[in-house]
Amino acid sequence: MRIIGIDPGIQITGYGVIDVLQDGSYDLVCSGSIQTKKTDKTPKRLLEIYEDILTICNKFEPDVASIEQLFFFKNQKTIIPVAQARGVILSALEKCNIEVFEYTPMVVKQVLTGSGRADKKFVEDMVRRTIELKHEIKLDDTIDAIAIAICHDRSRL
Amino acid sequence: MRIIGIDPGIQITGYGVIDVLQDGSYDLVCSGSIQTKKTDKTPKRLLEIYEDILTICNKFEPDVASIEQLFFFKNQKTIIPVAQARGVILSALEKCNIEVFEYTPMVVKQVLTGSGRADKKFVEDMVRRTIELKHEIKLDDTIDAIAIAICHDRSRL
Repeated sequence: MRIIGIDPGIQITGYGVIDVLQDGSYDLVCSGSIQTKKTDKTPKRLLEIYEDILTICNKFEPDVASIEQLFFFKNQKTIIPVAQARGVILSALEKCNIEVFEYTPMVVKQVLTGSGRADKKFVEDMVRRTIELKHEIKLDDTIDAIAIAICHDRSRL
Repeated sequence: MRIIGIDPGIQITGYGVIDVLQDGSYDLVCSGSIQTKKTDKTPKRLLEIYEDILTICNKFEPDVASIEQLFFFKNQKTIIPVAQARGVILSALEKCNIEVFEYTPMVVKQVLTGSGRADKKFVEDMVRRTIELKHEIKLDDTIDAIAIAICHDRSRL
């Protein structure tokens, strides 16, 4: 099974595509981030995210998508731009006929580290122990996206 | 000038396309609503909204779009689904190369009625006095969309 994990954002959307191998280990197919310019208007940035998700999904053909669930009481300042970005991502996944599963940040942490309150560093360490990253990954958003992808595989067992 | 006004929502997205005539009066080109099924999953509903906006804009070719601005402190329960719908609408407008202008509900009320605190009924009355609706419009969301379109024309003067 091939899973795309996505961490949505208007400025940076992290993504990671992983294969679940027969022995239960993972192979990182690709990972990266969609970055949009602050100086561009919101509609342009959103369309870029929509079209980049289409391109990535058409190229790597994931079977399912795993994406972070949002709550209004967290990150109130960014909730509207993040939700707008999430909207275009969900519609792009639907366009590619990819079923979407959603996980709260707490569940992702719980599944990866055993603790729903783990910090970013602990989650990142567990991602690095779970999957060979092959090349340096600089952005937290990309690591988070890979974590969300792994979370989907582990949650469905 | 042809303006499309849009009142975004995951369940009902109202829209109204108006022409601004040379004498400053308005002609209603078309109006209606995009309605999605509660029983369908969010990605499917969002893609429907995206594609319906594309279809409407390709058919009626508005010059500009006027859309309601969101605030997180209003309607906290619905802010995420509304913002997600708004995201796909903005990206569809960008896809059609239509410039987007945003107005707060207070500005729309102020411009239409002279009072930022006007109730729905007062706004609706003023819409009906300003533009001939030709056929019965049942949904508040459609009336609101026409109001947002008129607001854009009046605000730019």
